[in-house]
Amino acid sequence: MTRPGVDPFSQRTPRVIAARRLQRRRERDETGLFLAEGPQAVREALETSAVVEVFATKEATNRHHKIISMVRTADAELSLITEDGLAALAETVTPQGIVAVCRHIDVTLSDALTGRPRLVAVLADVKDPGNAGTVLRTADAAGAQVVVFAGKAVDPYNGKCVRASAGSLFHVDVVRAPDPLAVVTALQDAGMTVLAADGYGANDLDTLESDGALISPTAWMFGEEAHGLDPDLADAADARVRVPIHGRAESLNLAAAAAVCLYASARAHRRG
Amino acid sequence: MTRPGVDPFSQRTPRVIAARRLQRRRERDETGLFLAEGPQAVREALETSAVVEVFATKEATNRHHKIISMVRTADAELSLITEDGLAALAETVTPQGIVAVCRHIDVTLSDALTGRPRLVAVLADVKDPGNAGTVLRTADAAGAQVVVFAGKAVDPYNGKCVRASAGSLFHVDVVRAPDPLAVVTALQDAGMTVLAADGYGANDLDTLESDGALISPTAWMFGEEAHGLDPDLADAADARVRVPIHGRAESLNLAAAAAVCLYASARAHRRG
Repeated sequence: MTRPGVDPFSQRTPRVIAARRLQRRRERDETGLFLAEGPQAVREALETSAVVEVFATKEATNRHHKIISMVRTADAELSLITEDGLAALAETVTPQGIVAVCRHIDVTLSDALTGRPRLVAVLADVKDPGNAGTVLRTADAAGAQVVVFAGKAVDPYNGKCVRASAGSLFHVDVVRAPDPLAVVTALQDAGMTVLAADGYGANDLDTLESDGALISPTAWMFGEEAHGLDPDLADAADARVRVPIHGRAESLNLAAAAAVCLYASARAHRRG
Repeated sequence: MTRPGVDPFSQRTPRVIAARRLQRRRERDETGLFLAEGPQAVREALETSAVVEVFATKEATNRHHKIISMVRTADAELSLITEDGLAALAETVTPQGIVAVCRHIDVTLSDALTGRPRLVAVLADVKDPGNAGTVLRTADAAGAQVVVFAGKAVDPYNGKCVRASAGSLFHVDVVRAPDPLAVVTALQDAGMTVLAADGYGANDLDTLESDGALISPTAWMFGEEAHGLDPDLADAADARVRVPIHGRAESLNLAAAAAVCLYASARAHRRG
């Protein structure tokens, strides 16, 4: 609830200063909180009960009635904020008047696996938050139920990753796992085929698809854009798979390769 | 050839100042020139005879022997440049010591169509240079022979687009066409099926693929990320096609959708 008679929070209000610190990973790790900005992300966060507090400008509260009523139902706190205060909290130039402080929503890998997922994406050491968020969004679209941020991967709660995920952070089971080799073992123990996406992989994606090799529950593992997957990690997978390159490009970028691989699995699961 | 006894060019050397202006679209349009930075792009540019001049630091000339000998064979000019001069020319923080001034390499649509392409990508009003360059790279990888920058699309010679294309700008026939509707007509007149990628399209991509509808020569048309294709343009296409969304994501981002569509055509063409 907004408190009547209280001035909107500014960038100097202690609660805004505290929230702003969540732009830093260390603060997010210590508090278990993160920021989601813009009406779409805030709405999705509210649907998963992740929201602790919503900061909104006067104008945004007038424009986004549905969100404001969701804040009330969710028993989250609603604080009016000045444009300056909002600018301090938001990382984009057009934050659209609304930012939420959310609780971390990741689950353990073993919890995620109890849902018997048929499609999983593993981001192993993927460092670019925009790439990671885009793959998370694509994995959701392709019907993946779990996305694992493994090893030295970017923090899924990094603001750029949250924005690039376009709400998908709140749709799938997000897992953070420091040891990527342990992730491969756990996925295999759960009966999943682990495929390493690798531009130099011995197996051609199209051939695997026509041979029916993608019908089983599958976890796709994607590595860092510049150096690809760690060789030990790629070896631990059941197969290394390359997306065929028909033209003269040397490779695909991470987001494009992940889209082609994940949608190949989606087709196989629906046909198989 | 480097001129012995001449000091390396600095950021204040008139030739460097002139080349730097190519970071602006207007200057590129007026001169018909653009910049390609980093060893990979410079090498690819040299292979297409697009290079007018190469600026390289002393260190880069020692490191990239093959490129330097290609510059000599290509009869392009080689100028030593100081680190400061390079920093002025380059748009990235790690330009790797080498930048080339290149001639525009785009061809007319009718010239590109004389090659009877089987796969074409049309970027209609795509404004983000990183997205456009990524789709160009993916189109090349999927075996497209032609990429059209149509309507209000970004300049293909924008530095960020050149970098995101990872050399593919030099691999395919790049076309610039101000009138996207005329592009659709020309593609159809050349016997191609024009498909509009549209998140709300009536046709499901997987169904089209299984029905054999992707076997004919196909041009995929992609619109601006935020607003999608202009409705008149989508209407002019032979069909509006959606990538199926199996999860809860609202949509795919442009690069991911383009990868899934272009690779569906690549599979159909190889099987068909």
